Amino acid sequence: MSKANIEEMIKQLAELDSAGMYLDDFLLTWDRSDDEISAVFKTAQILMQMRKNNISPQVFESGLAVSLFRDNSTRTRFSYSSAANLLGLTVQDLDEGKSQIAHGETVRETANMVSFMADVIGIRDDMYIGKGNAYMREVADSVSQGYAAGILEQRPTLVNLQCDIDHPTQSMADAMHLIQHFGSLEDLKGKKIAMSWAYSPSYGKPLSVPQGIIGLMTRFGMDVVLAHPQGYEVMPEVEAVALKNAAAAGGSFSKTGSMAEAFQDADIVYPKSWAPFNAMEKRTELYGNHDMDGIKALEQELLAQNANFKDWECSERLMTLTKDRSALYMHCLPADITGVSCKQGEVTASVFDRYRDPLYFEASYKPYIIAAMIFLAKVKDPASKLTWLLQRNQQRIA
Amino acid sequence: MSKANIEEMIKQLAELDSAGMYLDDFLLTWDRSDDEISAVFKTAQILMQMRKNNISPQVFESGLAVSLFRDNSTRTRFSYSSAANLLGLTVQDLDEGKSQIAHGETVRETANMVSFMADVIGIRDDMYIGKGNAYMREVADSVSQGYAAGILEQRPTLVNLQCDIDHPTQSMADAMHLIQHFGSLEDLKGKKIAMSWAYSPSYGKPLSVPQGIIGLMTRFGMDVVLAHPQGYEVMPEVEAVALKNAAAAGGSFSKTGSMAEAFQDADIVYPKSWAPFNAMEKRTELYGNHDMDGIKALEQELLAQNANFKDWECSERLMTLTKDRSALYMHCLPADITGVSCKQGEVTASVFDRYRDPLYFEASYKPYIIAAMIFLAKVKDPASKLTWLLQRNQQRIA
Amino acid sequence: MSKANIEEMIKQLAELDSAGMYLDDFLLTWDRSDDEISAVFKTAQILMQMRKNNISPQVFESGLAVSLFRDNSTRTRFSYSSAANLLGLTVQDLDEGKSQIAHGETVRETANMVSFMADVIGIRDDMYIGKGNAYMREVADSVSQGYAAGILEQRPTLVNLQCDIDHPTQSMADAMHLIQHFGSLEDLKGKKIAMSWAYSPSYGKPLSVPQGIIGLMTRFGMDVVLAHPQGYEVMPEVEAVALKNAAAAGGSFSKTGSMAEAFQDADIVYPKSWAPFNAMEKRTELYGNHDMDGIKALEQELLAQNANFKDWECSERLMTLTKDRSALYMHCLPADITGVSCKQGEVTASVFDRYRDPLYFEASYKPYIIAAMIFLAKVKDPASKLTWLLQRNQQRIA
Repeated sequence: MSKANIEEMIKQLAELDSAGMYLDDFLLTWDRSDDEISAVFKTAQILMQMRKNNISPQVFESGLAVSLFRDNSTRTRFSYSSAANLLGLTVQDLDEGKSQIAHGETVRETANMVSFMADVIGIRDDMYIGKGNAYMREVADSVSQGYAAGILEQRPTLVNLQCDIDHPTQSMADAMHLIQHFGSLEDLKGKKIAMSWAYSPSYGKPLSVPQGIIGLMTRFGMDVVLAHPQGYEVMPEVEAVALKNAAAAGGSFSKTGSMAEAFQDADIVYPKSWAPFNAMEKRTELYGNHDMDGIKALEQELLAQNANFKDWECSERLMTLTKDRSALYMHCLPADITGVSCKQGEVTASVFDRYRDPLYFEASYKPYIIAAMIFLAKVKDPASKLTWLLQRNQQRIA
Repeated sequence: MSKANIEEMIKQLAELDSAGMYLDDFLLTWDRSDDEISAVFKTAQILMQMRKNNISPQVFESGLAVSLFRDNSTRTRFSYSSAANLLGLTVQDLDEGKSQIAHGETVRETANMVSFMADVIGIRDDMYIGKGNAYMREVADSVSQGYAAGILEQRPTLVNLQCDIDHPTQSMADAMHLIQHFGSLEDLKGKKIAMSWAYSPSYGKPLSVPQGIIGLMTRFGMDVVLAHPQGYEVMPEVEAVALKNAAAAGGSFSKTGSMAEAFQDADIVYPKSWAPFNAMEKRTELYGNHDMDGIKALEQELLAQNANFKDWECSERLMTLTKDRSALYMHCLPADITGVSCKQGEVTASVFDRYRDPLYFEASYKPYIIAAMIFLAKVKDPASKLTWLLQRNQQRIA
Repeated sequence: MSKANIEEMIKQLAELDSAGMYLDDFLLTWDRSDDEISAVFKTAQILMQMRKNNISPQVFESGLAVSLFRDNSTRTRFSYSSAANLLGLTVQDLDEGKSQIAHGETVRETANMVSFMADVIGIRDDMYIGKGNAYMREVADSVSQGYAAGILEQRPTLVNLQCDIDHPTQSMADAMHLIQHFGSLEDLKGKKIAMSWAYSPSYGKPLSVPQGIIGLMTRFGMDVVLAHPQGYEVMPEVEAVALKNAAAAGGSFSKTGSMAEAFQDADIVYPKSWAPFNAMEKRTELYGNHDMDGIKALEQELLAQNANFKDWECSERLMTLTKDRSALYMHCLPADITGVSCKQGEVTASVFDRYRDPLYFEASYKPYIIAAMIFLAKVKDPASKLTWLLQRNQQRIA
């Protein structure tokens, strides 16, 4: 892609109203306007093309990008690291362990103490229903107070790297994958996507991926179907968001208890395990009470419950039901692959193998999505700044 | 603050003789001359104003800032990280675990092995009386030898990020807070500061904060009062430093066994828990002998001893004794707040709440203090270089 | 050393054919041609002289250097960090724990997931015979596939930071030490080096150091003698490499069961403990079967076996046998020093003390060796680029 193409994309970005993102956080995709969502995709594409052309978009000469991972992560950690590095920020980990930490005074204090020279704070806190997103908002309020009081020189932008409600960097990277795959955001209109539960021998996987998908994909005029066995409901608030989105965008949001029904004529399938919302609520309560026996009992219960639905597997047979027998298979990775990473899992090896490259492409957009979120939050006039960066023509590799 | 003001501060810096800091370490504030101490404050203020004006003081294009934390740290770790990043250095952690490591050959070797491209080494080693500062000097000697032998291209500067004797980056940040609060270093003359022990339900907190405070604040012509119950004495050597400083600076250093007496007419109060020096010596010995039963017994003993002094709490009642009932309350954070972080602690919630913003400001100076220490150790003619950086006018954010 | 000297070295580099290194990995020294090996030394020397002259060789403005250490490391970790920093890359650790991780799908996926913005991947995986190097090649194949498919924007270069077969950054730094010590690569011709097993109270030390030494030093026309007690054989494949090298270079490779014989008239001695190859194979198998009792039994067996050879110590008496009684003593550090780091070990304290500075110099070249490996793999025309960097004259410290 030539510089002229990049300039053209910058022109398209300039037509979008992303002013609301400036100095704000990125916590839930449905907090953001359609223009802002489009601006993230466009900026991500521009940054990607610039890097591919060896033109650096480094706007920070120094500054910290704080990371707080309360759950293990390799993919998102590297994506965040890559995004920070691309823009010139240095990652500094805040290591608090994985336990639920005290709220209130401690959160306020820690948030300010790590932010004296921080431009961004990325947080993954997805383990406890009702806690992760609330914690992020508490951090956001804390640094807002610190900035208003003149204690912080800059107000660090929060990026939600996965919470109990949404996983916006994942769902946005997923959507960017669809845009790249189908040609444009407009081309997603009318496409059917099946976000389906799938069996896994593990338990307790976060709900933020399916919730993120139905909360985002419904904005693009797609026909979004959520499929899961009874008992694996997602948060009702997010279903409400999906319904509202679908109505506004001219698509649909529906639910089914059959994987096959969801797959029927689907353009895209996203089969993935998650834990029942109610069980996650119970688990959070048990952890709060330090009831370790209760937690163990719950785990056994959940594994037994899962085992009732081993036939919820993305098989070759199910794939034949999809549009032209060749729906795009998606996953946030790592997937539980039958006979590879487990005895029986979310997807058969032959389906997974066929889609390996697309899956890797899907993941490859996350660094750019995160970089775009940061860029739009920290740069007042992003289109002008990108034009300037293009003209500056600073090489990433000399 | 305008560039003209920064230029004025640089002129003031140029009048101070800080040549002794060049290529030297910062281990104890009382190792440094009055001019050098003043130069650190001035440089920190200049660096802060430059950053606030989006002018980067980055003097290193590459280079490592080694960090060795033998005790947990969030505040100091982020301060060190921020300072390194501001100047262009990359932090590389040396992770040796928290145990007392072997001295002698191992120290000499490790110090050199991590220093081939290191410009700074920051060390926190505050757990064992008689060990932390000694270890830092052993590292300092080791890299001096390596540099003299031509093995090291540069002699990394050591910054004491807290030892058993002093906590210079804390006390200097605290003093900078007073300078910002009262207007100037000269304005501290005649002010009364109460460095007081306070009750905490924990035990074994380092003595380096109270020692750092009495060892530094006595230089500014202040009336420094150290208050603690019997049995909570600090190191006699540091008291001797405080007495000598007070005599030279025209202030005073006195001790009392009453928190109320210390607070009487105080301009500043610094109530904080610490462990008895003798107990810490005993603990170091027990650790040396791997006497875990002895350590547990000592812990119980210390908690019981602490519990005799639960009335040593910075309460609203005690605050009314202070100058205009409104002394500046200080703490290195985190504080043990009664009813918030513990049942009963160092300070009541209402006092803490009223001083939250000042406390955060107090902490906010530490990155600049550390950056100033590094700058003065690595730059031969700091005033000229700062002038040059001002003229270079490199933006931190493009 | 002046700029003119650096220019002279660049001219010498230009005469070497290192094109085969471009976009390739550095896994085994014997994978590389003589010109390529020479080019690494020359480039390392040039980078070192540039840094000593405060001229930065930073060719990357951003980009990640992934590090994966499956065994503890301080020296190599800091060397890798220093090299990455010198060239402008930011290290991001991939922390998978020290256990043998699953191969196949997981390796392929992880390798790609961490590489979206990675220019280099450095791996230490030396614990299991038959596994470490194989793992590196699996990673290499994975990122090659990802790059070929267009998923990765760049194909990260792998640098072997120690595997079960070779430790190329160590042996190359060792050789650079000899070049610096004796004057030139040509001056090594005809020198006798004794790579000898030595007693250590620990067990299970990797074989990659002795294997790396005999696999590399035999290329320079040296007389390489490998000495060890019966039962401490190294991998036969590497001995075959050594024999082939010696024949091609006009030197020799021989073995002996006597440390004294190896030391006789040696110019250089490298006494170091390692584990028997067969035992390491057995250990890998036991780990594979999670046979912890078997591992404990093997450990006892190995320690008992070691204890039969306590006289394999680099003593003053043995040193008198060497050329002019003053062979250069080498070690990769840390050494087991009798009476210092253990009761009885690889070397007596007086020998070690006399060679401390040379040993530190030996270690000091590793950052430059790694930087040179990266530089030659990422820069198409290294001599031209170095000339350009010299002319750019960017200062490391302003």
